[in-house]
Amino acid sequence: MAKNLTTKILEAHLTEGMLIPGSEISIKIDHTLLQDATGTMAMLEFIAMGLPRVEVGLAAQYIDHNLLQTDYKNADDHAFLTSAARRFGVHLSKPGNGISHQVHLERFGVPGLTLLGADSHTPTAAGLSMLAIGAGGLDVALAMAGHSFSLPCPKVFGVKLIGQLNPWVSGKDVVLEMLRRHTVKGGVGKVIEYYGPGVAGLSATDRATIGNMGAELGATSSIFPSDERTREFLVAQGRGDGWQPLAADSGAFYDEYDEIDLSALEPLIACPSSPDKVVPVREVAGIKVDQVIVGSSVNSSFRDLMTVCRILEGKRIAAGVSFHANPGSRQVLENVAQQGGILMLLMAGVNIHQSGCLGCIGMGQAPGSGQISLRTFPRNFPGRSGTKDDKVYLCSPETAAASGLNGVITDPRDLGKSMSWPAVKNPDLYLVDDSSIIYPLSPADAAAVEIITGPNIVPFPTFEPLPDSLAATVVLKVGDNITTDHIMPAGNKILPLRSNIPAISRYVFEQIDTSFAERAESLGDVVVVGGENYGQGSSREHAALAPRYLGVRVKIAKSFARIHKANLVNFGILPLVFKNPVDYELIEQGAKIVCNGIRELVQAGATELPVLVNGAEIRVLLDVSERQRYELLAGGTLNAVKEGKV
Amino acid sequence: MAKNLTTKILEAHLTEGMLIPGSEISIKIDHTLLQDATGTMAMLEFIAMGLPRVEVGLAAQYIDHNLLQTDYKNADDHAFLTSAARRFGVHLSKPGNGISHQVHLERFGVPGLTLLGADSHTPTAAGLSMLAIGAGGLDVALAMAGHSFSLPCPKVFGVKLIGQLNPWVSGKDVVLEMLRRHTVKGGVGKVIEYYGPGVAGLSATDRATIGNMGAELGATSSIFPSDERTREFLVAQGRGDGWQPLAADSGAFYDEYDEIDLSALEPLIACPSSPDKVVPVREVAGIKVDQVIVGSSVNSSFRDLMTVCRILEGKRIAAGVSFHANPGSRQVLENVAQQGGILMLLMAGVNIHQSGCLGCIGMGQAPGSGQISLRTFPRNFPGRSGTKDDKVYLCSPETAAASGLNGVITDPRDLGKSMSWPAVKNPDLYLVDDSSIIYPLSPADAAAVEIITGPNIVPFPTFEPLPDSLAATVVLKVGDNITTDHIMPAGNKILPLRSNIPAISRYVFEQIDTSFAERAESLGDVVVVGGENYGQGSSREHAALAPRYLGVRVKIAKSFARIHKANLVNFGILPLVFKNPVDYELIEQGAKIVCNGIRELVQAGATELPVLVNGAEIRVLLDVSERQRYELLAGGTLNAVKEGKV
Repeated sequence: MAKNLTTKILEAHLTEGMLIPGSEISIKIDHTLLQDATGTMAMLEFIAMGLPRVEVGLAAQYIDHNLLQTDYKNADDHAFLTSAARRFGVHLSKPGNGISHQVHLERFGVPGLTLLGADSHTPTAAGLSMLAIGAGGLDVALAMAGHSFSLPCPKVFGVKLIGQLNPWVSGKDVVLEMLRRHTVKGGVGKVIEYYGPGVAGLSATDRATIGNMGAELGATSSIFPSDERTREFLVAQGRGDGWQPLAADSGAFYDEYDEIDLSALEPLIACPSSPDKVVPVREVAGIKVDQVIVGSSVNSSFRDLMTVCRILEGKRIAAGVSFHANPGSRQVLENVAQQGGILMLLMAGVNIHQSGCLGCIGMGQAPGSGQISLRTFPRNFPGRSGTKDDKVYLCSPETAAASGLNGVITDPRDLGKSMSWPAVKNPDLYLVDDSSIIYPLSPADAAAVEIITGPNIVPFPTFEPLPDSLAATVVLKVGDNITTDHIMPAGNKILPLRSNIPAISRYVFEQIDTSFAERAESLGDVVVVGGENYGQGSSREHAALAPRYLGVRVKIAKSFARIHKANLVNFGILPLVFKNPVDYELIEQGAKIVCNGIRELVQAGATELPVLVNGAEIRVLLDVSERQRYELLAGGTLNAVKEGKV
Repeated sequence: MAKNLTTKILEAHLTEGMLIPGSEISIKIDHTLLQDATGTMAMLEFIAMGLPRVEVGLAAQYIDHNLLQTDYKNADDHAFLTSAARRFGVHLSKPGNGISHQVHLERFGVPGLTLLGADSHTPTAAGLSMLAIGAGGLDVALAMAGHSFSLPCPKVFGVKLIGQLNPWVSGKDVVLEMLRRHTVKGGVGKVIEYYGPGVAGLSATDRATIGNMGAELGATSSIFPSDERTREFLVAQGRGDGWQPLAADSGAFYDEYDEIDLSALEPLIACPSSPDKVVPVREVAGIKVDQVIVGSSVNSSFRDLMTVCRILEGKRIAAGVSFHANPGSRQVLENVAQQGGILMLLMAGVNIHQSGCLGCIGMGQAPGSGQISLRTFPRNFPGRSGTKDDKVYLCSPETAAASGLNGVITDPRDLGKSMSWPAVKNPDLYLVDDSSIIYPLSPADAAAVEIITGPNIVPFPTFEPLPDSLAATVVLKVGDNITTDHIMPAGNKILPLRSNIPAISRYVFEQIDTSFAERAESLGDVVVVGGENYGQGSSREHAALAPRYLGVRVKIAKSFARIHKANLVNFGILPLVFKNPVDYELIEQGAKIVCNGIRELVQAGATELPVLVNGAEIRVLLDVSERQRYELLAGGTLNAVKEGKV
């Protein structure tokens, strides 16, 4: 049978299981990626395993999230991660060197390899035809230790691209179209594989943009063929040797199928406050804009920033607009500087920041009360900007620049009346500067490195194994599409606590219910009840780990987002799904939940379990692998690893 | 009698009083300057006066302090200040356009005029021969309303400069030498007037650096003659028409006198944690450095940043050092960009930030636990960096760059072995870009502007008049040289509350005594007892206003810093000085203080008062003007203005 590219890469990396969608498989991981928000805990977990050095082809640690340094904690994390990277043979990208995904694309990505990253936007590496998957920090720590990564075998969703993008339309609009068609649940359990004649019109960084926001579709990953455009990017990075051609067989089978005519696309925009609330820009044109930010992992490339420079060149941002540029990487900024772009931005009134995630992860750049913010970012979940009741729109760099000039949301094609489309291309040869990457030391030198742990870096908590039976109270009931931002908020106040579980747990569900932490602790063992797509969004394992620390032993939902479900298991929380979704209506906050004989049922491989809700039985499903059952029984993966069960 | 320049300018602006050092005088104010940290409250105070428009030659509002935007509050302040500036005829410099003092120098400063600024570093305008004075926000609000500014007539401290600076030594080293000789109290009650043949060797921006840190000497202001170097700067800014020559008469009298041979100076550095702990760099050379930051109001010029660029060009920051550049203004960054400096910084591994105060006011860039930070900033008071027990050194851009390259504190002259001194000069003609300055509207257009007040902008509190007698408890006793950073900390957590007195008052004295606010409130009327130079440092009126809100009615100290004392009176707190300093020893925390008949005594003009300490009488001095007595009786200046008494 003609194979799609995803299947080829999975086959080449398969260590356990069979490629039957939904069944658990394990795959060999070639590269791992950590950033500093998830990485401090992941590094603590790796350390807890006791290995002298990483056992993966290439491990990279980026520092890109927590750059504000409002007190000692960020800088302490930087020192910890730098010392740990040096100690264990990990590549370290210094603060200000750029966003992990952009830098990995530039300096490390290799077509056909697998990449496991503790960041949901890891599939940005789709731009270089890597099978790149976001996972919890613990999964990545295990991969760093040489373990295979286990996941439900994804379906492959083939998206055929035909035609060519028109001027003023770019990669961002392609993935916004996917979100318009398929919503934030459209990719769940799938790898989105792009193919067809339209692919050749997209550069590696355009493809990276599309792969990045596959995460917003809920996809396991996205992938593009490796072709001349891939080679062109690698050659421009001085890494042409790493190229190989990769593509689906002609007539390959896909589990699902869609087609996009690129020439039919127009500029699109996601309205507040979900990435799938997508409409044509012209439908919301004229809305007054207070803030515009370009940058972030989804629009981090040279082309993206230089396009903004060219659009703004010789013009001025509207007086009422605060316009910010967050360069994707030091390399991007250097190349833009070399071509005179920085002066274009400055003269237009743009404020240029150090390279990093910044406002996209709520580290600064919060809009004012009632203000409209237009961003080229991947996500606009409520409150993620740092401002409650925020109104954040997501769009392309072209739309952002045009709107910044006019002070109102503007279809960038309207600029076509007064200027020609800049048609910026990535450089044929990038100015390359790896001076902010610290390369692994020799094993002998590495062994001598002392790991620096400041007072906010607190050891991993210990958790009890699953008891024979569980009696617990429903501490909170929430609706559909609860994100990890709801469960464990990010932002400047909370991100610095990622390496300190007792401290960060005080903020669990803070946006929904400020008394959550206190109530959970007072109630003993507790249950959270959710609707559809519970735990969508980022890969942060703290959204499982911190609730577990507060006593959450069970979550019952209509459905779970993939990464979050895996994180729940990793920290010993039972991810139960209503067999009959209407049972959701039966459970209220305060209800008493009893799972009799739960340990034995999990051990026996039961996939359907009885649960008593205030004494009345409902049925729930436990869809986990054999390995995950061990982990649940042990009270979490690290316990299972210590017991030699994983 | 041959007059010094200070006297000439004071005479030309005198509206009340006589130029007798120590007696109260009032002077006409030509320019006013607000920044956003002090300016939100000052603007609320101006609004409370009910005028339709400012009545001062030029009023400028800068937004440079609170740029992090960790939640809605910063952006709300920006919107408030922008709308208020447009409404009242104030020039508005947008966030990211630069530090107030640098931008005022570039675009507005005029030799021989007076400038009153709600920022202690306002005397930076000494570089353009303005008599520029830092004051509380209320004083500036009054000046904006057309009132004269009242102050004790300063002594004039003449400092004769001879000789020329050697390579690798710059303006910062001159003012560090002043601090080494005269300490943080050496300028109290004085204007420091520089003159002599050495002056011609210093550019306007070198002079600005020296004037800026006159604030650290406690000086009322500093001033330089207006000469060819002044003209050269104004011409380079396209403002040559505003130049006039100004100088002391030959053989002018000075109240005090010192002389510095510039050719004898070497690179100096202020050690943790006071700007006057100055030693030659060579004495501390070799100490490992973790962080280096260049920029801030004291080293904000093109020369300063471009010097760093040239020193770093083609080299790399040491691996263990985190190196940041905070450009002084958009103009500086644009001119550096035009000369290729940005690429030099980026390739060396420097992280470039938007223009503003940033880490200098504790808005980000906090060092890690136990880390050494080297900064070109004006201040290193304990904890100001945002990290408790911080170790901050202050030095020149040359020393900072050299130390960043070597990873240890380095005398920049040591670089002379491998490179020649870059000898950067300011441009003959700056690239000028005023697109981030919003100019005043016509009165008709201005009247239509709606003032935007977000939820954190809280009206000015109301205060009671001075009662007939006062009985109060000593809530806190502190030692010498307590700074306004101790009294009312800045930093990213607290600065956003500057327009919200009930909220910010919770942090009064937080660094010294976390229970201060609670205890003060529980005790009713309270007293704070201090040592010498109480209230040194910034001009922030919140260091008087917030304690007053908590019930502080009296402060008794051995001596007060000038601006803080004026602020105390402005908000109705009695600034009493021990007649006999040893009485300081008699008062402990918890002591009961009684001021019988205090209202009558203040009204009668008493300069010496009896105070009962636990029943035993001591004598204290009240050295305030007639006007200030009205203000104390009314319970503060705004009350007195409302009563028509001021």
